[in-house]
Amino acid sequence: MYGAIEAGGTKFVCAVGTGPGDLETVQIPTTSPSATLDAAVEFLRRRRTELHSVGIASFGPVDLNPESWTYGYITSTPKPGWRNCDLAGAVRKSLGVPVGFDTDVNGAALGEARWGAARGLSDFLYLTVGTGIGGGGVSGGRVLHGLVHPEMGHIRVPHDRIEDPFEGSCPYHKDCLEGLASGPAMQARWGIPPRELSPDHPGIALEARYLAAGLATWVCTLSPQRIIMGGGVMQQSRLFPLIRAELLRLLNGYIEAREITDCADQYVVAPALGSRAGVLGALVLAEEAARRAD
Amino acid sequence: MYGAIEAGGTKFVCAVGTGPGDLETVQIPTTSPSATLDAAVEFLRRRRTELHSVGIASFGPVDLNPESWTYGYITSTPKPGWRNCDLAGAVRKSLGVPVGFDTDVNGAALGEARWGAARGLSDFLYLTVGTGIGGGGVSGGRVLHGLVHPEMGHIRVPHDRIEDPFEGSCPYHKDCLEGLASGPAMQARWGIPPRELSPDHPGIALEARYLAAGLATWVCTLSPQRIIMGGGVMQQSRLFPLIRAELLRLLNGYIEAREITDCADQYVVAPALGSRAGVLGALVLAEEAARRAD
Repeated sequence: MYGAIEAGGTKFVCAVGTGPGDLETVQIPTTSPSATLDAAVEFLRRRRTELHSVGIASFGPVDLNPESWTYGYITSTPKPGWRNCDLAGAVRKSLGVPVGFDTDVNGAALGEARWGAARGLSDFLYLTVGTGIGGGGVSGGRVLHGLVHPEMGHIRVPHDRIEDPFEGSCPYHKDCLEGLASGPAMQARWGIPPRELSPDHPGIALEARYLAAGLATWVCTLSPQRIIMGGGVMQQSRLFPLIRAELLRLLNGYIEAREITDCADQYVVAPALGSRAGVLGALVLAEEAARRAD
Repeated sequence: MYGAIEAGGTKFVCAVGTGPGDLETVQIPTTSPSATLDAAVEFLRRRRTELHSVGIASFGPVDLNPESWTYGYITSTPKPGWRNCDLAGAVRKSLGVPVGFDTDVNGAALGEARWGAARGLSDFLYLTVGTGIGGGGVSGGRVLHGLVHPEMGHIRVPHDRIEDPFEGSCPYHKDCLEGLASGPAMQARWGIPPRELSPDHPGIALEARYLAAGLATWVCTLSPQRIIMGGGVMQQSRLFPLIRAELLRLLNGYIEAREITDCADQYVVAPALGSRAGVLGALVLAEEAARRAD
């Protein structure tokens, strides 16, 4: 039995179990670190005697460098109270079990790889489009980490200011992809929540174009075998066919792979685990931590 | 002793040796596949009794999938005569030794990792800016491959058509990064070869901005510990400080890593192996092929 925490900016999803079939979960609103972590640990403590380890898939930025003294911390987040919060350390100290730690999107990628839409794939991208935009990349069967960790939502994409005068909502970059295509960006541009846009609203086609521009860049950079797109904005399922068509238009036959050109509906897909990808990924992180500890 | 072939669109660089200290090289102009390969094989055959294996770092697109029946081929190149050319197979059949095979930029990345500017790094990017733009990425100590292989030059970047009305020179994408910032794109935009642009020509600053936009996207996607920039266009060494400054401006402090913010002159660097990165990388591919065969 493993413990799992998907640490999000609005809620923590905590779970115990071994996989999608036996997962017992609870949701905790994200308030202060101490209140939220106390509630999360309390839920896990009830099962402590059975827990081998705990995995945490967290919002960020986080410190993933095992050599660093702030490993397992949430670092420079603007979220009040959470800056320099020792998430992994707090859970390890409270429960006395090994703790695995990664970003929320890397967690979701691991969940989809184990039980979802990326089973059997060595190279793929999990993307979430919601309050922010984030990507978890897997290459050669390994999650991309690097110097810090990827912040895929902040890539630059073409922005035609005549067609779309919205200047972008990212406080750091204005019109990076997240600044143009996150849920809050759509809300700011059109004045209504993304989920209330009718399927033929021009905001849907524009959103598909920005997201496809991001996908084209990642196809050229990472050469994924599949791209999984989750998050609140992707609940607008009309986006999927528009994104696929625009991606093919942008690539324009340059990448010769039938997986893309002939099977786009299998190339850009929704998460098979739906909103449970993140917490199930945290379970995979727990397994890995237990294996390392053995 | 290993054999190495850096297969380029204008020349093949062939070598035998064990590293930078004892490399014996020869250059062969790229004409027809049979003439070019005959000359390359002839050079290597003279040392055949000493050769454990040969490595090839090739222009592309190439087939890197070991399960594919066209593994080791150059595939869909527009270069006359070279489409569907069985490069690795021809060398293996002629010399009867194991052959390692990868893209030219992946090869250069491996060379820099072994003997050059990426020694000791697990995550970095090697970029070449010349006739085309290509990138070799290493993540967690492994070269990025994926569904086909990366084609990093073809990412999309912002293009202000008022400031730069040049429509882009990529036959597939017009104004992708390669279409805006390769050597031929610069030549087409300004009417003179890139190396003849004076350091204060506006084309140099514009070039730095496009390349920095690409770098910002790759920093957010791959989180490299360092970016190595080679190729003919980068001979304009004035580009380096301009690119570093523009990269910092674009990232705007969002990626909190002193390696980037405080040490940009060590973060974006020239190849330590200069123009020998590719052929030395082919030597690393040969070593790997020999190890696999043992």
